[in-house]
Amino acid sequence: MDVFLLFSGGKDSSLSAILLEPFFNVTLVTCNFGWKETWKPAKNVASELGFPHEVLRIDGAVLESAYSIALCDGYPNHAIDYIHLRALRCVASAHPGCAIADGTRRDDRVPMLKLPDAQRLEDRYGCTYIRPLLGYGRRAVDTLVAAHLEIVEDESEKIEKSDYETELRAIIEERCSSEMVRTIFPMHAQSRVVRRGLQR
Amino acid sequence: MDVFLLFSGGKDSSLSAILLEPFFNVTLVTCNFGWKETWKPAKNVASELGFPHEVLRIDGAVLESAYSIALCDGYPNHAIDYIHLRALRCVASAHPGCAIADGTRRDDRVPMLKLPDAQRLEDRYGCTYIRPLLGYGRRAVDTLVAAHLEIVEDESEKIEKSDYETELRAIIEERCSSEMVRTIFPMHAQSRVVRRGLQR
Repeated sequence: MDVFLLFSGGKDSSLSAILLEPFFNVTLVTCNFGWKETWKPAKNVASELGFPHEVLRIDGAVLESAYSIALCDGYPNHAIDYIHLRALRCVASAHPGCAIADGTRRDDRVPMLKLPDAQRLEDRYGCTYIRPLLGYGRRAVDTLVAAHLEIVEDESEKIEKSDYETELRAIIEERCSSEMVRTIFPMHAQSRVVRRGLQR
Repeated sequence: MDVFLLFSGGKDSSLSAILLEPFFNVTLVTCNFGWKETWKPAKNVASELGFPHEVLRIDGAVLESAYSIALCDGYPNHAIDYIHLRALRCVASAHPGCAIADGTRRDDRVPMLKLPDAQRLEDRYGCTYIRPLLGYGRRAVDTLVAAHLEIVEDESEKIEKSDYETELRAIIEERCSSEMVRTIFPMHAQSRVVRRGLQR
């Protein structure tokens, strides 16, 4: 079965791809609003991991709405959730009848579809929605990452990523200020996947 | 990493074993209260699937309590949840520092640990708790089962199983009646795993 996995190039979506690999034909999908070409780091990681990769253009109006939500809230959670659901719908529409997937894991708060939203997504788009890491907590994920991926960690602003945050940061910086970006997105450690690790 | 997976011989726990297999050293664990030797069907399925299998004896007092809960409620859900958490604790105690796992999936209502209970289990026992099917809904599970397992389906009373329900039924039948068993456990279709399927 073909599965199209939302892919940021980060360790969670990379690990999700590796967990799906023995059971599905995995294609990695990075969403982009056309605001900034943020998909390149993800494309490079996909190539290092050896998976096919595609860029899916999402309507810029989604980013505009997410920008408004983030500015109104003063924090990014609802804006990220808003984008994530629309990205999943977009992948489901682009690949009818296929499975779609993301890298959300048990202890994540954002982005995270609640059970009824996950079921509604499947019913509405006739798709199969898979979250291979949902049953894995931090300890299990760390163990698998150590075994299967080589990563580097740094502060969020210094890591080139292809997640939704990157374009949301860019639009906020351009329309408001970099000060506002730092207010809405407090600094936190981020990771970047370099390549597959030596399996121990 | 070693993972000890609660195993009933049913399709969910069998599929969970297959999903874990490429990444962990999987041992299947069937719990038994000593009330009835219900672990044999699971042992046979484990052997067919090619996984090591062990029987873990749980204190009969747990079954006694579950019996009281089921009789008081008139339905089995809380009793099954009660047993399940104690079974997980028992596996974690028996294999300190290892990962423990079960076959619960996204759309299950029972047994199902809530997020704080899952985190508390890991904190209290220093274990890693994995639910490989938690991110898979009915459609995804059906697809994987069709690809990886050969199963037979029948009414719940006619299938020889090694799940908690079997001993709970047995104690209710002995102490009350088979009529009471049918009141508490309405008839539903159950499945039995025969062997691995031909991977398509």
